[in-house]
Amino acid sequence: MSVKVLIVGGVAGGASAAARLRRLNEAMEIIIFERGEHISYANCGLPYYISGVIAERDALLVQTPGGMKDRFQIDVRTHSEVTRIFPEERVVEVQEKNGHIYRESYDELILSPGAAPVRPPIPGIDTIEAFVVRNVSDIDQIKGYIDEQQQQTAVVVGGGFIGLEMAENLSERGVQTTIIEMSNQVMAPLDFEMAAILHDHIFSKGVNLILEDGVKAFDKEENKTIITLQSGEQIQTDLTIIAIGVRPEIKLAKEAGLTIGDLGGIKVNEKLQSSDPHIYAIGDAIEVKHLITGEAALLPLAGPANKQGRIVADVISGRESRYKGTQGTSIAKIFDLVAASTGANEKILKKLGISYEISFTHSASNAGYYPGGKRLSIKLIFERNEGRVLGAQIVGSQGVDKRIDDIAGVIRREGTIYDLQELELAYAPPFSSAKDPVNMAGYVAENIIIGDVRTIQWYEVQKMNPKDVCIIDVRTEVERRGKFIVGSLHIPIDDLRNHLSELPKDKDIVLYCEIGLRGYLAYRILSQHGFTRVKNLNGGWVTYYPAVFG
Amino acid sequence: MSVKVLIVGGVAGGASAAARLRRLNEAMEIIIFERGEHISYANCGLPYYISGVIAERDALLVQTPGGMKDRFQIDVRTHSEVTRIFPEERVVEVQEKNGHIYRESYDELILSPGAAPVRPPIPGIDTIEAFVVRNVSDIDQIKGYIDEQQQQTAVVVGGGFIGLEMAENLSERGVQTTIIEMSNQVMAPLDFEMAAILHDHIFSKGVNLILEDGVKAFDKEENKTIITLQSGEQIQTDLTIIAIGVRPEIKLAKEAGLTIGDLGGIKVNEKLQSSDPHIYAIGDAIEVKHLITGEAALLPLAGPANKQGRIVADVISGRESRYKGTQGTSIAKIFDLVAASTGANEKILKKLGISYEISFTHSASNAGYYPGGKRLSIKLIFERNEGRVLGAQIVGSQGVDKRIDDIAGVIRREGTIYDLQELELAYAPPFSSAKDPVNMAGYVAENIIIGDVRTIQWYEVQKMNPKDVCIIDVRTEVERRGKFIVGSLHIPIDDLRNHLSELPKDKDIVLYCEIGLRGYLAYRILSQHGFTRVKNLNGGWVTYYPAVFG
Repeated sequence: MSVKVLIVGGVAGGASAAARLRRLNEAMEIIIFERGEHISYANCGLPYYISGVIAERDALLVQTPGGMKDRFQIDVRTHSEVTRIFPEERVVEVQEKNGHIYRESYDELILSPGAAPVRPPIPGIDTIEAFVVRNVSDIDQIKGYIDEQQQQTAVVVGGGFIGLEMAENLSERGVQTTIIEMSNQVMAPLDFEMAAILHDHIFSKGVNLILEDGVKAFDKEENKTIITLQSGEQIQTDLTIIAIGVRPEIKLAKEAGLTIGDLGGIKVNEKLQSSDPHIYAIGDAIEVKHLITGEAALLPLAGPANKQGRIVADVISGRESRYKGTQGTSIAKIFDLVAASTGANEKILKKLGISYEISFTHSASNAGYYPGGKRLSIKLIFERNEGRVLGAQIVGSQGVDKRIDDIAGVIRREGTIYDLQELELAYAPPFSSAKDPVNMAGYVAENIIIGDVRTIQWYEVQKMNPKDVCIIDVRTEVERRGKFIVGSLHIPIDDLRNHLSELPKDKDIVLYCEIGLRGYLAYRILSQHGFTRVKNLNGGWVTYYPAVFG
Repeated sequence: MSVKVLIVGGVAGGASAAARLRRLNEAMEIIIFERGEHISYANCGLPYYISGVIAERDALLVQTPGGMKDRFQIDVRTHSEVTRIFPEERVVEVQEKNGHIYRESYDELILSPGAAPVRPPIPGIDTIEAFVVRNVSDIDQIKGYIDEQQQQTAVVVGGGFIGLEMAENLSERGVQTTIIEMSNQVMAPLDFEMAAILHDHIFSKGVNLILEDGVKAFDKEENKTIITLQSGEQIQTDLTIIAIGVRPEIKLAKEAGLTIGDLGGIKVNEKLQSSDPHIYAIGDAIEVKHLITGEAALLPLAGPANKQGRIVADVISGRESRYKGTQGTSIAKIFDLVAASTGANEKILKKLGISYEISFTHSASNAGYYPGGKRLSIKLIFERNEGRVLGAQIVGSQGVDKRIDDIAGVIRREGTIYDLQELELAYAPPFSSAKDPVNMAGYVAENIIIGDVRTIQWYEVQKMNPKDVCIIDVRTEVERRGKFIVGSLHIPIDDLRNHLSELPKDKDIVLYCEIGLRGYLAYRILSQHGFTRVKNLNGGWVTYYPAVFG
C-alpha cells in the first residue's frame, strides 16, 4: 500500500515539500490542507502590491490548487483547517469552511502552519481597524481601504522588515506615513550604528520615523484613529498597520502534545522531526539551531523554509538529508538603500558572552573610475584568535546583496577572515573593484586581529573628553569643513610625518579620517615612530557621524 | 641599515606591493620603475573611455607618482625602463627616457612587468595603424583617431574580453564595428553553448561578428585598411584594433636567467619567489597554479595581481603569507548581457582527461512575481562522486556577478554541489528568489549525480536521428509553436500520465521542455512507471536552440 502524507499549510515550505514528495514518489498519496483561500502565494511580495510595483494581483498567486493537481497529482484542500491531531491514531481532524468536520489518517504528517503577526493587547486595538500583513486577503483589505479614499495617512507600528517595506510602499503610493518603533533603531538584525544610516534616509524620503516610543492607546474618532504614544504624543491616522513581529503558530502542535521550545516554536531535530517521529514540522513555526551561536532561534525566513520543505520530503522518502541550521541571512530594500545581515550581530554576541572583534569598512561598490559606484558600509564581526567570521551587516545602495552573499557563504562553511581575503570574485569595472569590498573587509579584519592597528569604537570616542586625549583628524581641509569631532587637531595624512615631533608620547592619541583607511595609514606611521598609545577610530567619520548625530 | 626594495612596473600588483611594503616598514627604501608615463592606471577601464561611459581622462589615472611620494614616501620613477638585472650583484640597470643609463642596487626585487598584447606576424600589419589596448597612451591614440574623423568603421581582431569590450564601446560611440574571431566562439573561458547565447546578442546590437575566420593580410589603401580573411572575404575599415591576447613580459627575467615556465610565464613558488630567492614576480607576467586543475596557467586578471601585490609585500616583510592559486574568476559586460565564469570549463577538463558532469539551469534572477526578473543561464561543472564543484559559467542580464561569486566562493574552499544547496543567501523579492538560482543549480546537480535523472546533452540530441528515438516535447502548445525539435512528439507535462500506455518501453526516450525542469518532472514520472530508457535534455530548448541554430 502506498504511503499517505498530510501537509498542514500550503505556503512556502509546505508546497515545496509536496512537490518534492511527488517527484520522489509517484505513488504516494499527498494531501495539503490550507486554512486560507490560497496556497503558495508570494508572501514576501505583498507590500509591493500596495505601491503597484507588483501591478497584477494574479502575480501574487504563485501556484494554484488546480495547478498542483494537474502537475503533481496533489490533493489540495483550501478553506480546510486542521483543528486537531490524534498522534496515537495518526489521524487529523479537519474543519471545512461550511463547518463540516471529518477525519483523515496519515502515515506521516508535516506541519507547515507558519507564524502569525503579533497583535499586542493595547487598549482600543479592537475598536479600530488595525491591519496586519500576512496573506493575500490582508493585502486585499489594505489595498481596498486605500483605493476607496483620496487623502490618506498611515501609521505603521513596528520598524522591522515588513514595517519598513510597508512604509516604503505606502509612501510610494502617496500615503503620508509614520513609523512607530519602540526600540532606538529600525531593523533589529542590524546593530545600532548600522541602522542609524537608515534612519536619516527614511526621514529624507518623507516618512516620519518615531523611535523609542510605543503605542499606549488606540481611539476611534469618526473615520480616523487617534494613536496615543507612551510619550504622550498623539497621532491621527486613517490607516493603521501592525507589524511588530510574528509568533509561531503552535496551537495545533501544542494540543497534540508535541514539544514546544523555550522561544515558543515547535522543537525539531535535524531530520525536522518533532517529538512525535511521524510528525514533522518546517518553516516559521519551528525553532532552528542558529548556525553561529548554536542556540535555538526563531528565524522566520523564506529561504530556510523552502530548503526545509525539500529536506523533509527527502527524509520521509528515506534519504539522508539533514537541516543543519539557519544563519539568518536577510535583506531589505529601504527606498534607495539596501540593508542586509547574516550570522550573529553584536547585540546577540554580547548577550551570550561570546567574545568578538569588529571592523567597519566603507568601500565603493565599483572601481572608483567607473561611474555609478556607491558606498558600501560593511560591519564585519569575527572571532579574535582564528579569525572565524561570526556575522556581517551591510548598508549601501548597490551591490549589497552580492557582498552579504559572499560573506554568508564563508560563514556557512565556518570560514575565516582569511577566506574573505582569498575569495576570487568576478571583477570588471561595471561590477566591482579589483580589491572587492569583501576582500577589503578581510584585510582590515586581519590588521585588527594581528595588531597592525588598534581600533577604538565610535561609542568610546563619543564618551571621551577631548581634553584627556589627543584626537587627530587626518582628512583634507575640504572634508573637515564644518564636520569634525570637536576638539580634534587637524593634520592631513600626507603632512603627518612632518609633525611627529609635535605629538605627545605620554597621552592617548585617537586618529580618524573619513572611512578609517587613512587613519590606519596614520596609525602605521605613528606606531613605527615610537608612539605606543595610538588608536584608530573604527569606520572613521562615516561610522561615527550617523551613530552620534543621526 | 634599512632594506631596499625595487619594483619593476607600477600598475596593479606593483603599486599594491609598494603601498603595502610602506605600511609594514616605515623605514624601507622603496623605488618603483615604470617604463611608461603613468603608474596605477585603470587598465580595466580603458575601453569605457572610448564610449564616454568614463568621461574624464583623469579618472583613468588612479594614483600619481606625486601622490605615492606624499602618502607613502615611495620614489616613483616613470619613463624609466629596467633593462637588465644582475642577480649576483643584486643590481639593476635603468634606462631613462633621455637615454641616460644608471644602476640601482637592491636587497629584494619585485618584477611586475605585466603582459603585452600579442601582435601576430600577419602580412601587412606593419604597414597599417593597428592599435592595441594596453595603457592610457594606447587609448589616447585610439580616441584621438576616432575624434578626428566623422564617419567610421572599425575592425576588432579577437573576440576575447578586451575585444568584446572594445567592440561594445566603439559601437556605443557610433562606430560601425566588426569582430573577427578565429575560433567558433567569443570569450574562450566559456564553453561553446554558453558563448552561443552571446553571439545572437552581439549581432542584435548591430555589431558584425565573424567567427571561424582569421586575418590573412592587411593592406593600406589611402586612409583605409583592407583586411583579407582566410576565407577570401575582404573588409574595409578605418580603424583596426588587435586584441587576440596577451603574452607575459619575460625578456628581463629570461635574460637574468630566471626560470620560465612551459607556457611562457615567469615561474614562482607560493611565496611568489622566482628561481632567484631575492627576485619576486607577480601579476600577468607569472604562471600561476590553476586551483582546479593543479596545472600551471596564464591567467592575467586584476584581482589576483592585486592580491599578489599584498602577499609579496608580506613575504618580503617576513610574514607567512602565501599565494595558493588562481581559479580564473572573470566577468564581462557585453551590451545588455553579462557573461562570467570561474574554475575549469569543459574544454579544459576534456583536454586534461578529468571526468566531470554538467548541469544547465535557466532560473529567474528574481522572484517571478517581482518585475524585472531576467533569465540566468548557469552551466555548472562538477565531479561525479563527491560532487566537488569544478567550474561554472553564467550568462544573463542581471545578478550574474552575484551568482558567479557565490559559486566562486564554494570552489575556493573546495566545496561541493551540496554546499551550493545549503548556501543561505539574502532573499527579498527585489534581489532574488527564495530558492536562489545557485541553490537550484546545486539541486539539479544532485539529481544528476545520484541518478534521479539521466540527462542527454544538446550535441548528442543534435546528432540523433529522430526515427531511432522517441523525442517528447513536454512544453505547452504556445511554447512549441514553430520552435521545436523536428520529429518530436508533443505531450504537455500535465497530460503525460494519461499517455503512458502509448509510449515505447523498447526504445530510447528523450524528454525536453523549455529549461529542463518539466523534462525532469516527466523523467520522474516515466522512470517510476517502468520506463528505463529515458533521458532528459540537459538545459532544455533554451540551451539547445542557440547552440544548434544560433
